[in-house]
Order: sequence, then C-alpha cells, then structure tokens
Amino acid sequence: MRGYFLSVEGGDGSGKSTQIKKIIAYLQEKGLEVVFTREPGGTDIGEKIRELILNPSHQEMTAKTEMLLYAASRAQHVEEKILPALAAGKVVLSDRFTDSSMAYQAYGRNLGDMVRVVNEIATNRLKPDLTIFLEISPKDGMARKQNQKAHTLDRMEQEQMAFHERVAMGYDAICQQEPKRICRIDATQTMDAVFAQIQTALDALLVSNAV
Amino acid sequence: MRGYFLSVEGGDGSGKSTQIKKIIAYLQEKGLEVVFTREPGGTDIGEKIRELILNPSHQEMTAKTEMLLYAASRAQHVEEKILPALAAGKVVLSDRFTDSSMAYQAYGRNLGDMVRVVNEIATNRLKPDLTIFLEISPKDGMARKQNQKAHTLDRMEQEQMAFHERVAMGYDAICQQEPKRICRIDATQTMDAVFAQIQTALDALLVSNAV
Repeated sequence: MRGYFLSVEGGDGSGKSTQIKKIIAYLQEKGLEVVFTREPGGTDIGEKIRELILNPSHQEMTAKTEMLLYAASRAQHVEEKILPALAAGKVVLSDRFTDSSMAYQAYGRNLGDMVRVVNEIATNRLKPDLTIFLEISPKDGMARKQNQKAHTLDRMEQEQMAFHERVAMGYDAICQQEPKRICRIDATQTMDAVFAQIQTALDALLVSNAV
Repeated sequence: MRGYFLSVEGGDGSGKSTQIKKIIAYLQEKGLEVVFTREPGGTDIGEKIRELILNPSHQEMTAKTEMLLYAASRAQHVEEKILPALAAGKVVLSDRFTDSSMAYQAYGRNLGDMVRVVNEIATNRLKPDLTIFLEISPKDGMARKQNQKAHTLDRMEQEQMAFHERVAMGYDAICQQEPKRICRIDATQTMDAVFAQIQTALDALLVSNAV
C-alpha cells in the first residue's frame, strides 16, 4: 500500500515549525511511520542547492535561475526520497513543496505559468495528498518574526513587503484552485485551535483511505 | 548594433580548446571585442552550479536534476553575461550552450522533449548566430583523450560508451534540424584544416551581417 504525502506551507511567523512537530507526534501515535523532510533540500544534493539559493551574497541571482534551482532540488527530492518512502508505505511530511514555488516564483517573482510547466516536469506531476496551509498576512507574520530571537535573514526573507504581498496573493489563488487538496487555516488563532483544524484534516484523509 | 553570439560544441578529444583560442585570435585581429565564456558556468553562480553538476561524488544525481541544474546555470549566464555583452555590440563566444543539453540530456540521458521545453524557458529562446560543431566519434575522441596527460574524470566524462554514443546521435539530429546555424566539421582532420572551415563560416557570418 502506498503511503501518504503531506506538505505544510506557510510564511514567516505562521507557526509552521511548531505545527509540524505536533503533526509528526500525532501520526506516530497512530502507529504510522513518518519521514520528515523539507524544501529546498531534503537530500544531500538538495541541501547544497539550498545553500546556493538562500546565500544572501547571491544578490545577482535572476528569478529564472532561482526557480530552476528550486525545481532541480525538487526533482532530486521526489526521485531519491519521496517516491521510495511512499512506495514503502510511509507517510512523507514535507516542509514546503511545489505550492511554494507557485507562490514565491510564479507570483512573488512574477514568472507566471512557466513555473507550473517546469515543476510538472521536475515532479512528474506528483502532488501531496493533503497540504496544510498556515495563513498569516505578511504584516502579521513579520511582526511575530521580529519578536523571535535575532537571526541572519536569508535571501528570500530579505525581500521587500511588496514581494511578500504577491506571495500571499499567490497562495490565495492556489487555495481557490485546489480547495480539496489544500486545508487553509487561519494561523493567527491559538496554537491549539490551529492544530485542532489540522487534526480534523488528517483524520479525514486517514479515514477516507482506510475505507 | 547587437553583437554576435557564437557557440562551440564538441566532445572529448575534438580539439575544442585549441580551436577556441584560434577563433578568439582571429576575431580580435579583425578588431572585434570578444567575450569568451563557458557552460556550465560563465558567472559566479554558474560556476558554483558547475561544481555541483560535475562533482564525481554526486553519483545519485537524477537525470532531471542534472538537466535542471544546467538550465539554471544557463538562465543566469544568458541574463547576467550574454545579453548585456551582445547589447554592447561585443562578440560572445561560449564553450557549449543549449545544444549540449539537447545532446547530453535529451539524447544521452533519454529525457527527450522536456529538455527543449525547459531550455526555451531558461534562455527565452536565445540561440547562437553560429555554432561550430567539432565532430568526432566517441571512440576516436576517447583514444585521443587517453593520449593526453592524466586528469581526474568528471561525472560526465565517467559515463559509459553507450551514453556517449547516444550523445553523438543527439548532435547528429540537431545538425540535421538546423543546418544553417550549425557548421558541422570533421574534427579528425588536421588542426589547420579544421580551422580553415571555421574561418569560412566566421567570414560568411561577418559579411552577411556587414551588408
């Protein structure tokens, strides 16, 4: 039996890391074997590509180069890690997947439809069975982020507010296109309220596939 | 006035490096400003991508990842280096360009038409005005290479003969598709005979554009 492929999407300050820990614990309690992974990265080659993409010194990187590097990392991720784990019946939980490229590159960088074309090639059209989208406005996310302890902003985090507004518009468009796959959750709620909604979505997925 | 974009293609032992030096000298004698560059690489970001691609330790790299990394490097190359130089009226001479991806990834790696699709996106359909293809059979090329002083083979050079035979078939197909752009030269001739043919092609290009 093929396992489940789950992804979590959400910007800075959306509480993504915290919710991911809770999801993993919840699935493990149910006796499922969970493979946690992330993008960009997820494989040795992918992590090296991640360093290239996020390095703040690479200010001259063009939008297309960035998009193609994300796709290269994703192609490696799918073939080397995600598909074998799914074939072995495991649950794969990825911190970000193709939706991030649609939001950040198609909308944020204004690259448009070419991002879909390239990513369909990179992933061979693999899509998550369920995507948890933790929604927070860029302004609220930024405010939360500034309350966290200082860290060096990576190249994507350094982008201006207008970029992050376009990214938010991108996520909104994606959610409207695929309401069944994407569970859109207001991330300004309490941690527990957010997780309660995630749990409902997870249970629905597991039940529907157990039948 | 826009400059000229030239590329040189050819496998191991084709004498590509030697002919490139002669081309540069010839064009400079004519008073043209030549920007020499290479793929993968050509820019700081591209050279870092080159290291990733050619690193012999990356045996697990998938064909699609490799193809997308070449495309990422090429996108950066086109936008950061080639187009600005052409706009400034210079001659850009690139050691390899998209034809290499068609031969090595579409044919050598059996990825087929997706390589064309991704590269049209990466280059915004930029093509060389003239491509010099130094043709040598994989067997003859290998024999010549072995007479050169020892060096560590990179990940592409380590490929088996069957791969290189598919690459040769790929170049053959490309030459048949675009006989006007690609000047196909038998690289087993003497160095001077090869360069005489290159010179004829260069002169034809310069004259046709001077009129």
